[in-house]
Amino acid sequence: MANSIDKAKVPQATVPRLARYLRVLHKLERDNVPKVSSKELAERLDANAAQIRKDFSYFGEFGVRGVGYEVKYLIGELSKCLGLDQEWNVVIVGAGKLGQALARYRGFREEGFRLVGIFDSSRYVIGTQVDELVVQAELQLAEFVRENKVHIAIITVPAQAAVLVAQRAIEGGIKGIVNFAPVRLPAAPGVFIRQVDLSTELMVVSFYLSQNAQSRV
Amino acid sequence: MANSIDKAKVPQATVPRLARYLRVLHKLERDNVPKVSSKELAERLDANAAQIRKDFSYFGEFGVRGVGYEVKYLIGELSKCLGLDQEWNVVIVGAGKLGQALARYRGFREEGFRLVGIFDSSRYVIGTQVDELVVQAELQLAEFVRENKVHIAIITVPAQAAVLVAQRAIEGGIKGIVNFAPVRLPAAPGVFIRQVDLSTELMVVSFYLSQNAQSRV
Repeated sequence: MANSIDKAKVPQATVPRLARYLRVLHKLERDNVPKVSSKELAERLDANAAQIRKDFSYFGEFGVRGVGYEVKYLIGELSKCLGLDQEWNVVIVGAGKLGQALARYRGFREEGFRLVGIFDSSRYVIGTQVDELVVQAELQLAEFVRENKVHIAIITVPAQAAVLVAQRAIEGGIKGIVNFAPVRLPAAPGVFIRQVDLSTELMVVSFYLSQNAQSRV
Repeated sequence: MANSIDKAKVPQATVPRLARYLRVLHKLERDNVPKVSSKELAERLDANAAQIRKDFSYFGEFGVRGVGYEVKYLIGELSKCLGLDQEWNVVIVGAGKLGQALARYRGFREEGFRLVGIFDSSRYVIGTQVDELVVQAELQLAEFVRENKVHIAIITVPAQAAVLVAQRAIEGGIKGIVNFAPVRLPAAPGVFIRQVDLSTELMVVSFYLSQNAQSRV
């Protein structure tokens, strides 16, 4: 069954939800819960059971009606789908506050993302230590990516520097970018770019707050 | 027409997309582009034109076939929908690396989010300066939220402290929370909680990288 998952069929909006399901399932596993229904999952996630069943349907039929899903099996399938059955080498480019916060973020390592390097352009920052890593010069990024088979670059430099560092990472052979810089990176063939804008999260909240204000009228 | 938008009908997955559209439209406005088609928008966003038209349809018919959407009008409607036609008072709880990075994030202010306070529990951090704000004691959070009509709290404390600080903020009357702590906050009536997990962004990338590996097989 594992090989029958056609990832191209999974819609883009579904992928972040799969990550959320996986986190809840890990929690259930730690609590020694062997099985879970879509209804229970929905309650734990404040989500919709029908949506969950639909999302799971992309992987074939692994729920048994009335019995629920096997937690361990589901974790295995979701992990495989999300590419977490392998290790990914990751670098952070930009050792400012956000870069350092992300470097110390424990959740990454737990999911198989291995932070192998951190880079900055400032001579005041290059050579300093962030946890076990020494900050390297951005000029060495392409070479480092090439030599260390780095898959993913997290970009946390200021907006005006982001396009250049992305270019350097791509030169070195990077295949995936998570860009926190508030600027749109140009598309590059064979490179998947995920643009993260932290103000989006605030907008989702203001949307709902103004919705409540509306419904009180 | 503004009053005819029924926000309850806008699906949850649509809201972050609206925020993305708005950013691109702001860029078009700065470049003095008066009109844009869903196809042009789709190209700029690496998105699907049909999806964009569907998302816009929740606001009624504001596109004219073959002519496109009026940029200024669209910005106005999207902003209103996202609650950006008013100012929101925001506090950050947790003045560590991530809290400080977010406090300095310019995008917030531009969209009408006004950072009015930053809090921490460490006596080494309380009283220090983050930009124009002085870090206050977490114990004062509820009172501050009440007295300053704070709408939204951004939580960037460690996992074990998050539930308590959320409680304090809610006691003070907070209505919206963006939680970066890797722990699920309990639901509270009348409070909208947005859980942000930064490792989700990496998983979206690993999903696509492993998909490409699959399609090469």
